[in-house]
Amino acid sequence: MIVHPRFPVEPWQVREVGLDIGVLAQSESLFALSNGHIGVRGNLDEGDPSGLPGTYLNSFYEVRPLPYAEAGYGFPETGQSVLNVTNGKLIRLLVDDEPFDLRYGDVLEHERVLDLRAGLLHRSVLWSSPSGQRIRVRSTRLVSLTQRAILAIRYQVEPVDDESRVVVQSELVANEDMPTQSADPRVAAILDNPLHAVEHGGRDTRALLLHRTRTSRLQIAAGMDHEIVAEHGYGCDLEVQPDWARLSVNHLVQPGEKLTLTKYVAYGWSSQRSLPALRDQVGAALIAARHTGWQKLVESQRAALDAFWSGADVEIDGAPAVQQAVRFALFHTFQAASRAEQRAIPAKGLTGSGYDGHAFWDSECFVLPVLTATAPHAAADALRWRHSTLELARERAHTLHLRGAAFPWRTIRGQECSGYWPAGTAALHINADIAVAAHRYVQWTGDEDFERDHALALLVETARLWQSVGYYGADGRFHIDGVTGPDEYSAVVDDNVYTNLMAGRNLAAAAEVALRWPEQASDLDVTGEEIEAWRAAAGAMAVPYDEARRVHQQDKGFTEHEVWDFERSARRDRYPLLLHAPYFELYRKQVIKQADLMLAMHWCGDAFTTEEKARAFAYYEPLTVRDSSLSACTQAVMAAEVGQLDLAADYLAEAAMMDLHDLQQNTRNGLHIASLAGTWLALVAGFGGMRDHGGQLSFRPQLPPGWSRLRFTVRWRGRRVGVSVDAETVRYELIDGHDTSELELLHCGEPVRLVPGSSQTRPVVLVEPLTPRPTQPLGREPVSIAELDAVSD
Amino acid sequence: MIVHPRFPVEPWQVREVGLDIGVLAQSESLFALSNGHIGVRGNLDEGDPSGLPGTYLNSFYEVRPLPYAEAGYGFPETGQSVLNVTNGKLIRLLVDDEPFDLRYGDVLEHERVLDLRAGLLHRSVLWSSPSGQRIRVRSTRLVSLTQRAILAIRYQVEPVDDESRVVVQSELVANEDMPTQSADPRVAAILDNPLHAVEHGGRDTRALLLHRTRTSRLQIAAGMDHEIVAEHGYGCDLEVQPDWARLSVNHLVQPGEKLTLTKYVAYGWSSQRSLPALRDQVGAALIAARHTGWQKLVESQRAALDAFWSGADVEIDGAPAVQQAVRFALFHTFQAASRAEQRAIPAKGLTGSGYDGHAFWDSECFVLPVLTATAPHAAADALRWRHSTLELARERAHTLHLRGAAFPWRTIRGQECSGYWPAGTAALHINADIAVAAHRYVQWTGDEDFERDHALALLVETARLWQSVGYYGADGRFHIDGVTGPDEYSAVVDDNVYTNLMAGRNLAAAAEVALRWPEQASDLDVTGEEIEAWRAAAGAMAVPYDEARRVHQQDKGFTEHEVWDFERSARRDRYPLLLHAPYFELYRKQVIKQADLMLAMHWCGDAFTTEEKARAFAYYEPLTVRDSSLSACTQAVMAAEVGQLDLAADYLAEAAMMDLHDLQQNTRNGLHIASLAGTWLALVAGFGGMRDHGGQLSFRPQLPPGWSRLRFTVRWRGRRVGVSVDAETVRYELIDGHDTSELELLHCGEPVRLVPGSSQTRPVVLVEPLTPRPTQPLGREPVSIAELDAVSD
Repeated sequence: MIVHPRFPVEPWQVREVGLDIGVLAQSESLFALSNGHIGVRGNLDEGDPSGLPGTYLNSFYEVRPLPYAEAGYGFPETGQSVLNVTNGKLIRLLVDDEPFDLRYGDVLEHERVLDLRAGLLHRSVLWSSPSGQRIRVRSTRLVSLTQRAILAIRYQVEPVDDESRVVVQSELVANEDMPTQSADPRVAAILDNPLHAVEHGGRDTRALLLHRTRTSRLQIAAGMDHEIVAEHGYGCDLEVQPDWARLSVNHLVQPGEKLTLTKYVAYGWSSQRSLPALRDQVGAALIAARHTGWQKLVESQRAALDAFWSGADVEIDGAPAVQQAVRFALFHTFQAASRAEQRAIPAKGLTGSGYDGHAFWDSECFVLPVLTATAPHAAADALRWRHSTLELARERAHTLHLRGAAFPWRTIRGQECSGYWPAGTAALHINADIAVAAHRYVQWTGDEDFERDHALALLVETARLWQSVGYYGADGRFHIDGVTGPDEYSAVVDDNVYTNLMAGRNLAAAAEVALRWPEQASDLDVTGEEIEAWRAAAGAMAVPYDEARRVHQQDKGFTEHEVWDFERSARRDRYPLLLHAPYFELYRKQVIKQADLMLAMHWCGDAFTTEEKARAFAYYEPLTVRDSSLSACTQAVMAAEVGQLDLAADYLAEAAMMDLHDLQQNTRNGLHIASLAGTWLALVAGFGGMRDHGGQLSFRPQLPPGWSRLRFTVRWRGRRVGVSVDAETVRYELIDGHDTSELELLHCGEPVRLVPGSSQTRPVVLVEPLTPRPTQPLGREPVSIAELDAVSD
Repeated sequence: MIVHPRFPVEPWQVREVGLDIGVLAQSESLFALSNGHIGVRGNLDEGDPSGLPGTYLNSFYEVRPLPYAEAGYGFPETGQSVLNVTNGKLIRLLVDDEPFDLRYGDVLEHERVLDLRAGLLHRSVLWSSPSGQRIRVRSTRLVSLTQRAILAIRYQVEPVDDESRVVVQSELVANEDMPTQSADPRVAAILDNPLHAVEHGGRDTRALLLHRTRTSRLQIAAGMDHEIVAEHGYGCDLEVQPDWARLSVNHLVQPGEKLTLTKYVAYGWSSQRSLPALRDQVGAALIAARHTGWQKLVESQRAALDAFWSGADVEIDGAPAVQQAVRFALFHTFQAASRAEQRAIPAKGLTGSGYDGHAFWDSECFVLPVLTATAPHAAADALRWRHSTLELARERAHTLHLRGAAFPWRTIRGQECSGYWPAGTAALHINADIAVAAHRYVQWTGDEDFERDHALALLVETARLWQSVGYYGADGRFHIDGVTGPDEYSAVVDDNVYTNLMAGRNLAAAAEVALRWPEQASDLDVTGEEIEAWRAAAGAMAVPYDEARRVHQQDKGFTEHEVWDFERSARRDRYPLLLHAPYFELYRKQVIKQADLMLAMHWCGDAFTTEEKARAFAYYEPLTVRDSSLSACTQAVMAAEVGQLDLAADYLAEAAMMDLHDLQQNTRNGLHIASLAGTWLALVAGFGGMRDHGGQLSFRPQLPPGWSRLRFTVRWRGRRVGVSVDAETVRYELIDGHDTSELELLHCGEPVRLVPGSSQTRPVVLVEPLTPRPTQPLGREPVSIAELDAVSD
């Protein structure tokens, strides 16, 4: 945990004052830049010291064997690990032969600023070299949202006291030394020297390195070019080797004068294109970037972000730390996906190598709902990636003796890479998560082309999976046995409510969409009988309920199990429990890693009564330890729905601060993109009460104590809907769009009709809590929003 | 499967006529010799060709890492693999410079005979060398049951046609080349060159090799000495290298003359003793063996087996193949344990490296009941081994957050070596299996010293385990959730009936024995409250029952799951299912690998009514695929109990022929000792109807169709009880013993009282079957005993 308030509370930026080398790796994650295609960690320009060097290209990975002490049928034999590719952000500096290294000499000033509106990372350092020479270094870094292949850096050196001989070395480096990582199984495996040099070259200020991975046979090209501005003559020297290229600029700089280097780095990779094609692609990207120039790159970066914020920003009056955090969260969510273009959105985005760089269900279940409402093109792209892996998912289903498609629990390219099946293969809900996300995207956007060309096949093949997994019991209900729901402290259970309800939605949506596109459905061999079977199963889904305790069961029998000894855990063990207790203990007791039934009650809320939700919330709160970063946001949403507004605010704060305060103590390996996205969900679905059940947009806004206003905007069918809430009233506004038709939304269940440009106001209706504020397991109370705001003051 | 009837049906021997190199590995397992300390596979004397070279010392193993694609808390990090140690049985032969190798020249006669009464393996070969010289080779091999460290071989060469220059090379060879094994996860991992040479030496006809393992740091000494008998002068040459020693005997032999070599091999190993101590130990064993001499070794071998058979033999009139098989089974069961002396009895005995040489629950649950009744000293020794690992089991329980002791699912030395926890750690029933086996041994023998010094601690610590694992539910019953029962196609289930009932017996026995030894119990910190808690839990054990289907559930909810598609399995997959279907499918459906509820109904039969057993047998038979060798014998026992006598006979045949007919197609890796022991259970507990509920010996004998008589003997409290059954009557006889008191046993629930030397006769009462003969899954009907007997004719 970053204990000290390192970041002043400012609405549109995250500013670090001073430099704490002890938390360097964390800050590298926080200051990572990405466009969804390229990702660069916030490593210092000069490379040393570093926490975790990181430059990533989406889906550029190496294959590695997955070992088993006792293997089993269908266990994946190979995994995929994201690679730290050729580092293009490296700019070393020598001042009068002293290397600029913050561990030597004196750091007089150090500031880094992540500008959330401009999409730039600024750094400013005033450093006194070991020999006493003061020097000012300023750098600005961007990963272009408009020129997808481009990373650009402006680097400026200015001696303060005396004339200095300055050497700036701008580099490309492949196969960097990587630190040993922790014993935590979730931390990515390390792959040493993964890049095999195949070509290198350069001329003037330009250099190119081409490499190939050994097993996955992917090729990567990294090129750099430079513009140098100096007050007078300077020397320039280029050296290119197979694994590195270095442009050295040698200049005698007077105090007050500046040496300015602008570095353009272009990346390209492919599994199929030829080496010359890749070389040319990177060459062209570099020329285009130089032609665009630094200033235009900066301007178009701002324009791209302005467009995003206009339909995505959330404003909060009364909680400045949360205000900052939600913008930080939205910025990273957008960055992770913006230009991914039919590649996965990994759990850590491209901010670190945690989880091996894999994408999980959290992409569809936490990130896509936000993107669907704020940057729909990015949501569509992510779903098109899933669609592109359909054939692999069909093969996996076949391996598992199932019909349809079984998407991987964790993957980069599409193959299943999960090495522990009870929390991998068995977590079949990912298939419904994907299907429902595709259906939701269509409901929000009305994108019929996507529905026909992508959603239909995703829905049909996953519906077939459920049909083959489930069965009708003697009770006439449709049951799904032996699966793992979102809560990974229960595994291989029967009738997990979340899985069953999501599968039901999957089946119903498949039937609906297949009927809408009969010709295309027929191409997929869908028959009328099949559609009927889907509908019947969707209508008969089992939802276990404990009559004695009057509460839903997370899965069949859950509430009858022994309750975990939370006191012992607080006293003797540490969290997360999975690192300190055997699955054998965790699985057979009532202890919940992360919201599971609550997630069902959020996304399938229309399957429960208000009282059922309140009772379930009260029952499951004391059992939920939040050892997953995917829990707090859902608990915030449901706390708000059942009227526990202060608790909701605390959970919101925890989700929002997950990385800024390193609450899970693993931000060093990358940001928790789904938790960041969850911050938006906590605000919009939580305090905004936004739901989309049955494709109907609805709201039930309420503010937590201390807030005077919450404003947010969502994109719905090509138009922006603005919602502004204060203590007493809600104002709904239909902002723009080509479509002039009326929009009907629901406010607390009552229709509100809006025409473009109009707004309507309704009274806030507070939900009366049915129970006292529920308690949490000892020592696992949420971070208090009040505390966080106090710390941040 | 050994398709052709290779073994003529003979009552007291297994004779192989001819040699089929295609099934060499299988025959090496069948012809393995052991005394529980040393084990040698039936490799040909000359070493080549071989299926799987194998010389084992009980508990001599190497440590190897257990890898995980995704590790978890408490997963064992290292495993143990039995090693193929220094091969002392190797005797090569050259005839006029032609190596004696059955793949070259012509094999005119080849016969191997395992003599089950003498404990000898005979071989006789008439071979024509490539140059046409006929030569007769005879060898006899024994692993001494009386001189535990000794393997001895008599080897004889006799030219038939012409004078021959014969060179016999008797060797010790460490680090033999081993074949690559199959991809079946159950097949043992291979360790290359595991022995590190530390000392070697020799003189005259004697040589010694000392080695050390690299990681487990165990030291082994192997020595050989020889006696040579020739008609006239011969040359002798000894060469000793770090990894091999070779005595070459060079002799010109005339037709009709013989060269006879007697080889004595002694083994010793230790983890603690010094090298000189080990060297001396082996030297002493060799000198003792030479002093005893071949003839005396052979005689005392016979005497040891006579003593065993006098209290263990089972005679069957009317099923000669089964008669042979049961004696083969009893011989190997006895061999595996006789001189193990506080070491484990591995699943394969010392007949192969299958399962890495590990011991499992089948030792206590299938092998020890047989040994308790036939060779009680061996049962006590095996339990003393468990007792000696109590501290490791306490540590394991602590790691698992449990109290008491948690014994390993699979191990050589005592540490948990299971790399897949749902079928390892979760199979907690092994603790009850051990405790109940200890309690049973005391009930059968009245061995109070053992009860006080060993059984008490085993019972107390396992009772504590159950007390900490289980809990009282809202229904007032004591529940044990999240464990795996005997059936490995269901895992991590709640209230497995077998586990619960065995845990109940464990708890009740702990209470009973703790009260009998208050002082020693107090040393273990047992309190009166603890004893009360054990009794209460034992009395409140949950036993799930399906009211609608009127049948017990193997575990809670089992009968509600979807039924496996057995037709598809018969059509498209192969057996065993675990190699062709994912656990994900197996676990969530009604499909049973091996008897589970049936095992509960056998060992805890007094917890069920006659009708409940019959209904359960009929329900579970169509679901049980017998992919484990531990299933047929239990199904035989229960089939007999419910009156399905022809089906019981078929299951008996399957258990009996498991290895002789290689029914599981893995006999090459070693014999299925528990299935062999199960043959005796099928006969004695099945057709003899023998039970020991509550420490009361009882019988309910019935014969299957076609049998005219079944006779067996068991040892009960130091006396032998003989039972002889024909179609109409049963004769009970109390044979001997120092104790002259009356023995009361039950015949069909009615008391029969016997004084030593007396006998009583009672009428056979056939059980009337309540259901028609149940069916089995398609393609998994048991081997028919009639067919087997026909094949064997």
